[in-house]
Order: sequence, then structure tokens, then C-alpha cells
Amino acid sequence: MPLTLNKLLSFDHIPDAVGYLNRLKQVEALQTIADLETATLVRLLQNPELKHGVALAAMLTTTGKIDVLEQLPKDRLADLITELSPETQQQALALLSTESKTIILNLMSYPPDTAGSMMTTEFIQVPNTWTVAQTLQHIRDVESTRETVYAIYVVDHEHCLQFVLPLRRLVIAEAEQALTELWAGQTPIRITPETDREDVAHLIRRYDFLALPVVNEAQQIVGIVTVDDVIDALIDEAAEDIGRFGGGEHITKPYLEVGFGTMLRKRGGWLAILFLGELLTASVMQHYEMALAQAVVLAMFIPLIMSSGGNSGSQATSLLIRGLALGDVALSDWWRVLLRELPTGLMLGIGLGALGFIRIIAWQYLGFYDYGPHYFLLGLTIWASLVGIVCFGSSVGAMLPFMLQRAGLDPASASAPLVATLVDVLGLIIYFSIAALILTGTIL
Amino acid sequence: MPLTLNKLLSFDHIPDAVGYLNRLKQVEALQTIADLETATLVRLLQNPELKHGVALAAMLTTTGKIDVLEQLPKDRLADLITELSPETQQQALALLSTESKTIILNLMSYPPDTAGSMMTTEFIQVPNTWTVAQTLQHIRDVESTRETVYAIYVVDHEHCLQFVLPLRRLVIAEAEQALTELWAGQTPIRITPETDREDVAHLIRRYDFLALPVVNEAQQIVGIVTVDDVIDALIDEAAEDIGRFGGGEHITKPYLEVGFGTMLRKRGGWLAILFLGELLTASVMQHYEMALAQAVVLAMFIPLIMSSGGNSGSQATSLLIRGLALGDVALSDWWRVLLRELPTGLMLGIGLGALGFIRIIAWQYLGFYDYGPHYFLLGLTIWASLVGIVCFGSSVGAMLPFMLQRAGLDPASASAPLVATLVDVLGLIIYFSIAALILTGTIL
Repeated sequence: MPLTLNKLLSFDHIPDAVGYLNRLKQVEALQTIADLETATLVRLLQNPELKHGVALAAMLTTTGKIDVLEQLPKDRLADLITELSPETQQQALALLSTESKTIILNLMSYPPDTAGSMMTTEFIQVPNTWTVAQTLQHIRDVESTRETVYAIYVVDHEHCLQFVLPLRRLVIAEAEQALTELWAGQTPIRITPETDREDVAHLIRRYDFLALPVVNEAQQIVGIVTVDDVIDALIDEAAEDIGRFGGGEHITKPYLEVGFGTMLRKRGGWLAILFLGELLTASVMQHYEMALAQAVVLAMFIPLIMSSGGNSGSQATSLLIRGLALGDVALSDWWRVLLRELPTGLMLGIGLGALGFIRIIAWQYLGFYDYGPHYFLLGLTIWASLVGIVCFGSSVGAMLPFMLQRAGLDPASASAPLVATLVDVLGLIIYFSIAALILTGTIL
Repeated sequence: MPLTLNKLLSFDHIPDAVGYLNRLKQVEALQTIADLETATLVRLLQNPELKHGVALAAMLTTTGKIDVLEQLPKDRLADLITELSPETQQQALALLSTESKTIILNLMSYPPDTAGSMMTTEFIQVPNTWTVAQTLQHIRDVESTRETVYAIYVVDHEHCLQFVLPLRRLVIAEAEQALTELWAGQTPIRITPETDREDVAHLIRRYDFLALPVVNEAQQIVGIVTVDDVIDALIDEAAEDIGRFGGGEHITKPYLEVGFGTMLRKRGGWLAILFLGELLTASVMQHYEMALAQAVVLAMFIPLIMSSGGNSGSQATSLLIRGLALGDVALSDWWRVLLRELPTGLMLGIGLGALGFIRIIAWQYLGFYDYGPHYFLLGLTIWASLVGIVCFGSSVGAMLPFMLQRAGLDPASASAPLVATLVDVLGLIIYFSIAALILTGTIL
């Protein structure tokens, strides 16, 4: 017995064994588990964290050990088969039983990020004519093949979902009670295969359920989404939001596994769009060429002023993305938010502007730099510009998530770089306009 | 019966009734529910989404209806009591039973964001000498007072946690079997009250448990953290990460409920720190005053060049924050990441630089702007600077999360504004150095 197998069998919990396998090289990992018994292979392969899952599924297919795949939960099997090479995929589908194949092809037909792509078809469904004893006996019979037995889906004679009972209600009930006696008359919460995974997470969170039934148009259950899949989805969504906020969206694979070309294409596309937006800053600057030539000192504060606008904007955006995501703020609150952001931006601008003003006056007095005889007016220009730009940045930054949500987009697609780009172009115009107002006749 | 009460009683599910109450004004909501029976009040107040929860708890305290509070799950009660005004808090604690008071004070003593502050003390604990039948009978007796009965915690004669059984194992077992017969010998996964909530979420996700036991130093169970609390924690964490990435961290209350002063202080502090960092750009610009005065045209591309560095940096940062958070990338992978970011940045810089170069040449030929006789060299300067800055931005942006994690900080505290500030100062130096290299003798 190889050392690695010994080590593998020493783990108490499957996820720890999976963690160990993930740290092995693929060849070594596959060799280690090749001769395990079917039940153990099923438990390993069932874990979505197993990095070598697809490779293992391919190996099992080509070596004809299809019984392992056959015993997997169908949702996991569908995920694995989706990722196989087209050739191996066909081979696997051909080897599977007709029943499994039908379920798998059906699961594979739902778009990613929907309830259909997350759901499992292994759940407990019983007729509404049954008693508690009958149901408990059924659970005993099928328990090993069901992802969860904690929610019991009760259907009428047309197989339509009538109500849901938690197992705890059954455990405390009398054996001879009818299931309908345990039902308080609530309509069950249900979703469709097309429900977005974010909405699924929202519902599971709201109602504190361990699973949600997915029904077709005839109200028949086609699957259930369990809370552990929702947790995975939430973690994915959070990562996606961070990625999107930083402008690295649409890169869904693990960082080190993305091909160099794909990485370049996906990152480059977004950077290029922002770049084209930022090219407008060059046009704005050209417009103020005369002012720049007369007062080079104005150019020195451009990075400072631009970044302050961008920073206050992306701060406001992130606050409002969060507010909209958590439901603290509704779409209709936009004017209340704007009425808060304007004075907030004003005060923040006054504060930052004061720092800038002090810096100019201090450098002048301490002799670090000579801003010329009009240093005081220059200081005022910087101060006033910061007030205008921070105010503008906060307002635009705060309104952007609302505008995106209003347009039917995800408010979280407002990224920090997008806000910065929006604020930069108009920020420069604000700066040069204020400079013209204050400095014309002196250094301009 | 008021209209609002009629409406309230029409809801099938408590979360929907809570949603309805949340849309009422506080006075109206409290009036509506004032005369409800205790059981319904408990179910409403139990829901952490109820906005008027603290006000309701205060009303119940002052009107002496302490039985509602007494019947709440202790973790929820502790959360509510923590938020009461000091006076009402004392009043509530004085009215509660000694047993409840002890539990509450203990729960309140754990820092926020730890397992201790999330856990509930209502769980099923049985001695390891019991049979399945004894355990099921116990579950029937106490079910209504337990947050979950799906995990059964089995302890030895010293009340130390020995193993955990899921209810499904009990349901399929024979009545006379001993609990120890159902145990396969695994050591249970457990946490301490001090475990960070992010780690709790990580463990629940890894092992797909519905609850995790929290043990003291003697390995006795002091509470359990259930999956629904973990989902709430995950959503909070995700919102916190977005807030932090945008530089709006530490604002934990709902946006519209934060006081104006608090909002200013928390946002202003961070903006001021970034501003002080950005002041360095003014010093860098002063240093290149001569170059700027000779070639005003150089100033025109500063916003473009700076923002490209910041954008590529925050993109790389967000990718790596995600990679580290999902475990796709380990701390030790930093050099592999750097070896990817350098060529990626190089190629992205070449691409963006080409766009900038084409823009200058095109404007020159189309007569939109005259960059002078050395427009070609100027175009090359912009191109080369973008290569340098995008390369630098991507590398710094990618390394920042690693450095933060290495320093024991959360990699997600790397915010887009922080990356931009880091990149801006050195970006300007890169730009002016390349300009000096290419343009000295012509326009410099």
C-alpha cells in the first residue's frame, strides 16, 4: 500500500482527505485513489472541492468504472460531465443508465447561476394521503440516496407540490397521524429552474430554510436547492462582486488556472474601454493648453485633485452598492441619498481642501517651494476645486449604483475604475473653470 | 381590529409578516402588534430582520411583558438586549429569570464577529449511554425549545463532547441501538467561542454541516452556530469587503441610519490619509517643474497615464483578493503570481500604449491638434510610459494582498483607492523619467 493511500485513509472527515489529495500532483492523486472501493470513491468525488474531480471522472469513464459515477448525486454528476472533454462526455453519457442520462442532460440544459443548475434531484417526495409512520418508513428506505431528508415534500394526486414538512415535525408527531394534520395551511415557498442564484440565496436567508423546492409550470417538483449549495453560491457571488468592483470581472476560473491569452483578453477589454474614456481627459487638457502654459503650477495639482474625486466617488459607490445589496436602501431612496451625499461631499471637500490649502501655504512659508506672489489665490483655487470635485465625485459615485439598478443591471457592476473615469473628465473641467474664475488677471 | 393587524395575520410566513411590519412606521408597527398573543410575538421578535425589534423589546420590558423575551432563543435575546439603552437594559436584565440572565450576560461577553457572539445555547445534548429510542423521546420532549434538532451532540460522563450524530442517522436506526453503535469513530469538528466568524463560515462550508458545536477548554459544549447564522455572517462579510475595497470601511449601520457626523468622520479619516499620500504627487511634479514648463504637452497626458496605472492595479488587486479568499492562491504562490503579472502587465501596457500612440498620431494627421514636430517621439513616450506604468501597477496591485496577508492583515483591506495612491506617485516618476530619456534634446 503506497504511503499516500495510508495517509488518505487516516482522515476522519472526507473534506480533510480531499484537502490532502488537492495538495498532491494529479497523477499521484489519481494513482492513490485508483483502487479504493466504490463507496469511498463516491464520497470523494461527491465533494466539489476535489480539484482532480474532472480528471477522476474521466479516468473512471475510460476504465469503465461507471458505477461510481452512477452512484453520485445527479447535480454533482452533471457538473462533472459538463467539464469533461466533448469526447469523454459522450463516452460517459453512453455508459450511464438511461434514467441517469435523462436527468443529467436535463440538469445540464439550465443556464449557469440559476436554480436549475444548482438543484439536486435527490429529495423526499410523498403523497398527501400518507401517515407519519408511512413517511418515516419511506425515509428509512431511501435515506442513503437522498441529499437531504430534513424537508419532506408532500404532493397531491397530480404530483403537484401541496406543502412542505420539516423532519422535526414528523419526529415529534404520532405515528398514525396523517401528514395533512401536521400542515398549518401555509403555501410553500418555491422557486423555478430559472430563478437566479442570488434570489435563491436571498429566499433561503429570508425564510431560514435548509432547502427550497424547484417546481415546473405544473407545480411539480423537479429538484431542490440545498443550503450548502447556497453557501457556495454566496461565496462565489461575493468573490464575483469584488472582482467586478475592481474591474476584473468575468474571470471565473481560479487565478493560476486561467490561460495567459484568456487573462489578457478579459482584462485588456475592460482596461481598453476605460482607457478610451480617459482619453477624453487628454482632450479636456488640450482645451486648457493656454492656461497650463501660463501657469505650469496648475498642472502640479492635477494628480491630487483627480485622485481625490476618484477616491470619494468610489467610497460612495461602495457604500451604496452595499446598501442596495443588503436592502438598507431602496431604489426609490435615490433622492434621500443624494440629499445626504451633497452635504457630505461638501464637508469632506472642505476638509480635504483645507489640507491642500495648508500644504501650499506651509511650503511657501517654510521655503520648500515658491508658488509666486499669488500663492494665496492658488491655495484658494485648490481648496475650492477640491470642494467642487469631492462633492461631484460623492454624488456621481452614489448615484451610479442606482442608475445601474434602474437600468436593470446589477448595481455591483459599478466598479471603482468606472467611477474614477466618470469623475476624472468632469473633475478637470471643474478644476480649470475654478482656476479661471479665481486666477484670471493674476497668473492666468 | 385595525386594518394593519388584519393584514399582518394574513401572511402565511413570519418573514413576510416581518417584511410588512418593516414598511410601517415604528409607532404604527408597535401599535399593530401590541395585543398579539405571546407565541406570535415571540415568532416575530425572533426574526433578526424585524427593524422595530429593539423598540419592541424596550416596549415589552417597560410594560412588564417579560415572558415574550423569556421565550426567545437566547442568542437573539442577547442581541436585542445589547442594543437597548443602558437604562432599559438594566430593567430587562432585572426582570429576566436568573437562568436566562446568566446565559445572556455570558453571550454578551463575547466580542462581535466571533462564534461566541453568533452561537445559540438551545441545542440537543445527550449522554453517550443512551439508546436511539431514549434520544428520540428526548427530542420529542424538548423539540419546541431547540433551534435545531438535526444535530445531536453526544457527551461523555464529564459532559465533554464525544461525537455528533445527524438526526437522519437516528431516524434510520433501530430503536434499541446504542448511540455509540451509530458512531464511526470520527473526532467531531468543533470551534471555540473566540473563533472568527469568517473561519466558522469556512468550516461550515467545507464540511457541509448544518451546525458546528462551540466548546470550552474542557471540551464541554457551550453553544452551537447554525447554518442560517453563517449565511447572515457571509452576507455581512461580503458587504464589508465591498465597502472596504471602495474605502468606505467601518460603516456598519444601514446607510440611511448613520448619523451625519459619524458618516463624515469615518469617510473623512480614510480620504484624508489617502490625500496625504497623494500630496506626494505634488512634490514629484514640483521636481519636474522644468520639464513641465518646457513641454506643457507632457501635462496633458498625466491624467490618462495615472488612471491607467490605477485601473490595472485595482484590477489585479481584486483578482488576487478573490484568489486568496477562495483559496485558489496560497501565500506561497506570490512569486508564481508575480511571474504571471509581469508579462500580463507588459502585454496590457503594450496594448493600451498602442491605443495612446494611435490617438496622438491620428489627431496630428487629422489636424485635431498639433503636437509639434516631435509628435512621433511624444507618441513613443506615451506608449513606453504606459507599458512601464501598467506593468508596475499590475505587479504592485497583485502583490499588495499578499503583503497584507503576510503582515497578518485581511488581504481584502487592500482597497482600490490605496492601490491607486501607491501607483500614482511612482507612476509619475516613471513617466517623467521615460520622457527625459526619449525627449531630451528635442522638446526637453
